[in-house]
Amino acid sequence: MSETPADNVVRTYIDTHRDAFLEDLAEWLRIPSVSAQPEHADDVRRSAEWLAAHLAKTGFPVAEVWETPGAPAVFAEWPSDDPGAPTVLVYGHHDVQPAELADGWHTEPFEPVVKDGRMYARGAADDKGQVFFHTLGVRAHLAATGAEAPAVHLKLLVEGEEESGSAHFRALVEREAARLAADVVIVSDTGMWSETTPTVCTGMRGVADCEIDLHGPDQDIHSGAFGGAVPNPATVAARLVAALHDADEKVAIPGFYDNVAELTDEERQLIAELPFDEDEWLRTAKSHAAAGEKGYSTLERVWARPTAEVNGIGGGYQGPGGKTIVPASAHLKLSFRLVSGQDPYEIEAAVRDWVAAHVPDGIRHSLVFGAPTRPCLTPLGHPALRSVVRAMERAFGQKVRFTREGGSGPAADLQDVLGAPVLFLGISVPSDGWHAPNEKVELDLLLKGVETAAHLWTDLAAHWRPAA
Amino acid sequence: MSETPADNVVRTYIDTHRDAFLEDLAEWLRIPSVSAQPEHADDVRRSAEWLAAHLAKTGFPVAEVWETPGAPAVFAEWPSDDPGAPTVLVYGHHDVQPAELADGWHTEPFEPVVKDGRMYARGAADDKGQVFFHTLGVRAHLAATGAEAPAVHLKLLVEGEEESGSAHFRALVEREAARLAADVVIVSDTGMWSETTPTVCTGMRGVADCEIDLHGPDQDIHSGAFGGAVPNPATVAARLVAALHDADEKVAIPGFYDNVAELTDEERQLIAELPFDEDEWLRTAKSHAAAGEKGYSTLERVWARPTAEVNGIGGGYQGPGGKTIVPASAHLKLSFRLVSGQDPYEIEAAVRDWVAAHVPDGIRHSLVFGAPTRPCLTPLGHPALRSVVRAMERAFGQKVRFTREGGSGPAADLQDVLGAPVLFLGISVPSDGWHAPNEKVELDLLLKGVETAAHLWTDLAAHWRPAA
Repeated sequence: MSETPADNVVRTYIDTHRDAFLEDLAEWLRIPSVSAQPEHADDVRRSAEWLAAHLAKTGFPVAEVWETPGAPAVFAEWPSDDPGAPTVLVYGHHDVQPAELADGWHTEPFEPVVKDGRMYARGAADDKGQVFFHTLGVRAHLAATGAEAPAVHLKLLVEGEEESGSAHFRALVEREAARLAADVVIVSDTGMWSETTPTVCTGMRGVADCEIDLHGPDQDIHSGAFGGAVPNPATVAARLVAALHDADEKVAIPGFYDNVAELTDEERQLIAELPFDEDEWLRTAKSHAAAGEKGYSTLERVWARPTAEVNGIGGGYQGPGGKTIVPASAHLKLSFRLVSGQDPYEIEAAVRDWVAAHVPDGIRHSLVFGAPTRPCLTPLGHPALRSVVRAMERAFGQKVRFTREGGSGPAADLQDVLGAPVLFLGISVPSDGWHAPNEKVELDLLLKGVETAAHLWTDLAAHWRPAA
Repeated sequence: MSETPADNVVRTYIDTHRDAFLEDLAEWLRIPSVSAQPEHADDVRRSAEWLAAHLAKTGFPVAEVWETPGAPAVFAEWPSDDPGAPTVLVYGHHDVQPAELADGWHTEPFEPVVKDGRMYARGAADDKGQVFFHTLGVRAHLAATGAEAPAVHLKLLVEGEEESGSAHFRALVEREAARLAADVVIVSDTGMWSETTPTVCTGMRGVADCEIDLHGPDQDIHSGAFGGAVPNPATVAARLVAALHDADEKVAIPGFYDNVAELTDEERQLIAELPFDEDEWLRTAKSHAAAGEKGYSTLERVWARPTAEVNGIGGGYQGPGGKTIVPASAHLKLSFRLVSGQDPYEIEAAVRDWVAAHVPDGIRHSLVFGAPTRPCLTPLGHPALRSVVRAMERAFGQKVRFTREGGSGPAADLQDVLGAPVLFLGISVPSDGWHAPNEKVELDLLLKGVETAAHLWTDLAAHWRPAA
């Protein structure tokens, strides 16, 4: 990993443009593009239009807002002058999780604040920051090569519904498959092991989520007059949640594990070699105990094992004081993390059967699944993965290791539809607070991401000529 | 049950004053005296002041607002001219359950509407209507006797915290025990079997309620990054609720049934003789199946068996769409109906031990119990109970049967502190919608309540001379 003139050009270019880059990112982060909340639909559109304009300004000859039946995506393309160069599709998303000051934010979630080398804002790490390092990245790449166009055929697809289940993403990819065609997909929506241990992610869990409504009495009724003699939908909701797991914390839904790709001994060994400190991990998780499926380590549980989780539960009176009622209804939001081998639609069918079998007489239920996200694994022998590792090692100046991610993204849909392998290039760290209050991005790491992207296109073009 | 001149006088008096009586009741019902919600504290006070003024206008020589550390109560007294007459303390409450139009009310809950012989408003039946029939009742009684003062020493105690657990009621009764001293307590805060089957209630269940807060991660965390490897407080809340009952729907908390007064064969027979129609009962309960403790009928379950009920549950994301989090916290509101023999404080201790034993590592919990209400049973042989039955039979013109109530009131505290037996005189029916949207009172029955009260004081004074 000796320094080259290109390394210096890239670093100097980044230093020179750092302030403007961060100002532009802050401007984008001010747009509250919360895709799960209908009242923010206009903001999600504004975010897409802002990004398309910014990509055009960056130099992409093509930069378009792509409509979907839901929130719009952004597509940009910058062909290489070398027709035989690989075609790379970078994936990210411009929508963000819901955020309210009252959730525990120290500053307004949509008013970015830079403090102690970090930028705090909803979307700073997940995923606007990570989309954004590719904009300065390609400019730094051009500064290093001296060319007018990147060394690879570069495409960007930045969707607007990732945080609400990517309901229309697969259809969009199918519709635009010809323009999206690529030799490899690089997903920038993941993280690294830590600030000091750069890693490449090689797999993500999928997710299937559902809402279950349970209706008992036609209205709230007096728990003195009727309690103890009619079914209570809040009790039924709680019993469903309690029945999700067995005594070993395995998911108790019949068929749930049928096609799970079990960890190999080698995979378990690679995971065990990482410098994992459970106390530190718990601090990052803001949690006070490790718990989960018997027979697996914490990292195995979050990276390679499927789960059933209750994200929300509600029923009856939740205001101040008491109210002695049997509630009319109760509601559950459940999500299931899936691993390689599990088909989301088979899981959905298994959950539907299981719920129907657990709801007693006198309780009506409805169950709605969102669009699922499939699990995926990167082919470890792919030449593009070696390029990603080398580019990161140049930027970070140290050995890069391998991880997985417990989270989910629509990467598997890209792999399915486009027939291209999926790699992961992310610079976020566990303390960034994805989906949580006070989300932030480490500015040093964000600029290492810029540097990695600048090197990656050169390395890929130099080492890989995909078969035509 | 032949007609007497007194019957006619009473009925004529009621007919003449009916409209003004209903207008006054509507004025009182417009005051939203919701004791559970701090923002209504002024309204609860206004309700007490309104009632004291109205009782003074009715003729009570004493009509006072009594302060407590919480909401004020109202006390009124009207001594008989006969020093040897029984002293009767009538109990009711002037506070009401929370109510919002959005809960499913067809009209504003605090704007009374008379329609089809019913008055709709929060508190119409529980309990302002039932307090109110004693006001016209004592006037009609005087019209029938021609006296200046009632035939009994009449006292009224109308508390302001019944719907929020009567937290300061027992202390108030202890403080004012001398002024409240009575030979018998008549509670007007219960109901009858139906519009066509008048009944006297002989017992009520007690209630102990608690709020449980469960805290897991210090904030909501990403269910992809951390899910499956840390405890989820919403899951723990659900597991507590699910563990409340065994497979026979018996409460599974150790010690819960230790001192329960089991139903005798005779009591089960009396209950079985009532004209109970389960389909009709389910319609009144707005419910779609009967369910509950194995080995007991529906009426036995609600009148004579203790229960554990979840009144509210909440945790995690409950807004639109999904949010893939492990929630930071979850909350439960539980209530336990108690029957004769169960001590609320022993139950509280049993629940505390049980919860502590069920909360896993990594979850902190807190548990707060409200002030309990004890169960009570009327002594069946008491002469005052015979007077109540006779007065009702005169008003209703038919045989009066016996029931119990599943609900709870602070009657047992009056019995404990004052050493007086407690009787129940209520004219509400199951369809009145206590604690539910569209609460109403049947105007015909309300006026039968007036008539019963008018006869009751005459009958009591004629048939019972308590030992001095």
